[in-house]
Amino acid sequence: MKLDELYALLRRRGVLWPTAEIYGGAQGLYDYGPLGTALKRRIERAWTTWFVGRSPDYYLIEPSVIVPEAVVRASGHLENFTDPEITCESCHAAFRAETVLEKVRPDGVDGLTPAQIEEVVRTHQVRCPSCGSTALSVPSAFNLMFDLPFGVARSERAYLLPETAQSSYLAFARMWEVGRKALPLGIAVIGRAFRNEIAPRQVLFRMRSFTQAELQIFFDPAAPPGRLGPLASEKVPVLRVDRRERGEGSPALVPAGELVSSGLPEFYVDHLVHLFRFLRDILGYPAERIRFFEKSEKERAFYNRLQFDAEVHLESLGGYKEVGAVHYRGDYDLRRHGEGSGKDLSISRGGTERVVPHVLELTFGVDRNLWALADVHLAKDGDRTVWRLPPYLAPVSLGVFPLIAKEHRPFAEQLSRALLASGIDAEYDEASSIGKRYARMDEAGTPFCVTVDGGTVGDGAEQGTVTLRSRDSRAQERVTASELAARLAPLVRPPWPPAP
Amino acid sequence: MKLDELYALLRRRGVLWPTAEIYGGAQGLYDYGPLGTALKRRIERAWTTWFVGRSPDYYLIEPSVIVPEAVVRASGHLENFTDPEITCESCHAAFRAETVLEKVRPDGVDGLTPAQIEEVVRTHQVRCPSCGSTALSVPSAFNLMFDLPFGVARSERAYLLPETAQSSYLAFARMWEVGRKALPLGIAVIGRAFRNEIAPRQVLFRMRSFTQAELQIFFDPAAPPGRLGPLASEKVPVLRVDRRERGEGSPALVPAGELVSSGLPEFYVDHLVHLFRFLRDILGYPAERIRFFEKSEKERAFYNRLQFDAEVHLESLGGYKEVGAVHYRGDYDLRRHGEGSGKDLSISRGGTERVVPHVLELTFGVDRNLWALADVHLAKDGDRTVWRLPPYLAPVSLGVFPLIAKEHRPFAEQLSRALLASGIDAEYDEASSIGKRYARMDEAGTPFCVTVDGGTVGDGAEQGTVTLRSRDSRAQERVTASELAARLAPLVRPPWPPAP
Repeated sequence: MKLDELYALLRRRGVLWPTAEIYGGAQGLYDYGPLGTALKRRIERAWTTWFVGRSPDYYLIEPSVIVPEAVVRASGHLENFTDPEITCESCHAAFRAETVLEKVRPDGVDGLTPAQIEEVVRTHQVRCPSCGSTALSVPSAFNLMFDLPFGVARSERAYLLPETAQSSYLAFARMWEVGRKALPLGIAVIGRAFRNEIAPRQVLFRMRSFTQAELQIFFDPAAPPGRLGPLASEKVPVLRVDRRERGEGSPALVPAGELVSSGLPEFYVDHLVHLFRFLRDILGYPAERIRFFEKSEKERAFYNRLQFDAEVHLESLGGYKEVGAVHYRGDYDLRRHGEGSGKDLSISRGGTERVVPHVLELTFGVDRNLWALADVHLAKDGDRTVWRLPPYLAPVSLGVFPLIAKEHRPFAEQLSRALLASGIDAEYDEASSIGKRYARMDEAGTPFCVTVDGGTVGDGAEQGTVTLRSRDSRAQERVTASELAARLAPLVRPPWPPAP
Repeated sequence: MKLDELYALLRRRGVLWPTAEIYGGAQGLYDYGPLGTALKRRIERAWTTWFVGRSPDYYLIEPSVIVPEAVVRASGHLENFTDPEITCESCHAAFRAETVLEKVRPDGVDGLTPAQIEEVVRTHQVRCPSCGSTALSVPSAFNLMFDLPFGVARSERAYLLPETAQSSYLAFARMWEVGRKALPLGIAVIGRAFRNEIAPRQVLFRMRSFTQAELQIFFDPAAPPGRLGPLASEKVPVLRVDRRERGEGSPALVPAGELVSSGLPEFYVDHLVHLFRFLRDILGYPAERIRFFEKSEKERAFYNRLQFDAEVHLESLGGYKEVGAVHYRGDYDLRRHGEGSGKDLSISRGGTERVVPHVLELTFGVDRNLWALADVHLAKDGDRTVWRLPPYLAPVSLGVFPLIAKEHRPFAEQLSRALLASGIDAEYDEASSIGKRYARMDEAGTPFCVTVDGGTVGDGAEQGTVTLRSRDSRAQERVTASELAARLAPLVRPPWPPAP
């Protein structure tokens, strides 16, 4: 579906809507409704099990979203977390410089000063995308962080974290004490991050408040975590820098083992494959819509030694969009926070030798993947609209309907409750015709529905049986109600935990 | 335990610690570590099932924590969400006026202007609690909200919500369309709220960023939700205003039915009982430590028609502390947001008659209850420290130990993984002696542990069996490993869903 159509459908079904919608909304902010909230939690659960569940030494924490200024000074965000903008003196519109200069400077504007950007604008006689004027100016760099007056005198400064990763770096010293005092140590956060984006757009893809799931793996560079083993033959869709330089946009399918022999560290490739399998096997994105986009040294942040962005091709957004990434950040983070805090964040290797742990960062955009799950799996299918979510991600596992509300309600309601108690996410619905109820459940991604009818509550051969209908095949069969929980459990159970 | 002892223990075990601890912490901000995060999620799950699960027309949503200024102007927070402070001109300390004037004005200072507070200070010759000086001044009212420069020009104002409730009011119109278009309609939020507290203290009890679980039930006052039925005989520990005026601090045990005949609406009492049962039966607070503290008309916010705070007596904080509340807010919220947004938030009663729905609000402090669960259930017991959490709230359900790591590791690790796959939250631990491992699990609240030993992996009579040890009784017995999941499931399963 196109962006507008998909967004309208998600909004109508209460998956999400603009924050303060009755006040006309707030740019870049969204609220999740019941279906969106349930789906988001299932994505988060899947991510946690797949990534954090990979080792008993990986932990999930829930940190504050506000930090004092010293933290973002040490991390470099106070100085560098800027997004140059271009404003039009004629129509007063504001744009991200990168967007306005996309054609004349395809490599982006990272690292340029406002004066240098202004020179690019003059040289190329760039015009305002809105009114066409050449009266464009480049204000001093705009920091994307939200700052807060903090404390009673409002004289302290605090910041809403622009990425959850910083919380894991702050927690390293404490978690070293709490855990096994051994590397690798993983610290994961699923939480909100905040950026005062110049041009929020594409609904969940450039928000001002969004949810990240990030795992920081701290390790001794002499003993990095991750061995490919039998996964060496797994073919990964990668778009390497050399291929990009030849003008290619489609990825090549390269066996993981070959990526290692071409020079990428095995631990890095291992995590690339682990993320690839999550996107393909757990979220169900077709492999041919996934690519791992290698960032060149010039494109990635200076502290990143390696960076591949995981991208999914989305019809609604007209191309490949980033939904996650694997960053090898070296010792930058602990070194900076060690210097900033004055606390020694190195650890002993035994004897007198000490090392500042390196960081492998796995990032994952929860909102972006929620949108991608709609883009990829939600589609018109003849006369109906079906959201073919993997069953373990569906907000509701089973719709429970009485054929005629006033006759079959008691049995259906009790069945619904019994299934809930057995761990099946059942939802009772008695409104309108069975066809309309199927249609609502199809749109919501519900993989199964059962209908209670005269046969169920009668004393004939069908007593105690219900009609079970599958979302994908539309096939219907008669099953015994008391056996439903046992029958459905394996069908809606997630395919994890993964092997270590 | 006393506050300092309990906090030190929770910090050492990584349940929680101050945000940016390596930088010396940030006042009023805390991070949850692995145990705290797991416990917090279990509390949230229990709350959701108990309160939101009560009706298919109650929904959980996940809204933005940032809202535009128009929202907090309509809600009254921009004008009224203030906490008068008193500053000392001699030592420059700042205090909440209510705290400094506690003795001379026990009813609090709500509603007083700064000038009136200054008069109280002069009249009673109040001294600075810190340096003893009488040179105290009362600055103009201090708004507790965090404000943000929003948008590119930083000219818009946005606010971090000081209570999650507002998000539910904002969502009412959309949820009316998404749901059954019928009352009662419940909209729940579990999320962060933010207050720039003048004097953060008592760890999780006065934080600057905290998690609330709140359910707003929208209803037609002509047909409020909630019938006591057989619960009319349930005795509720209430401290009514008249009893308080007689100088009593302990609650009276009053049957719910009598509260109704004394004039409280049945729907209100029904929800009071529902909250009482949650605190007693699900969180396991002893009934004799719970009281429902009625706020008088003078004490409660002007829009609250009824307010009972649920309080638990906490040793660490030296008295009864609020952990939740039931507020009957009338039509204040939808009326204000209807006026503020210009959108008609009344609904049709059929025909031409319209009504602005009333709101019954159930509030619940997630952090405060996490602390209360530690205060109530975590204690020294002879030579050990045991956290006697209800088993379904325990972060870890089962510790799995090899007696001798290098001999019994494969069996124990595989058992741990198999149990995880069956839905038992097992944690593998091979570090140090069995006694020390029991002690660690006791402190973490783990209700059961199993040990794999020579008998397990041998070919004798004990083959395939493990030692199961109970946290509370310390009893040990030999059980078959393959039967563990079936044996433990009912012991760690939550006692819900509740009857409707």
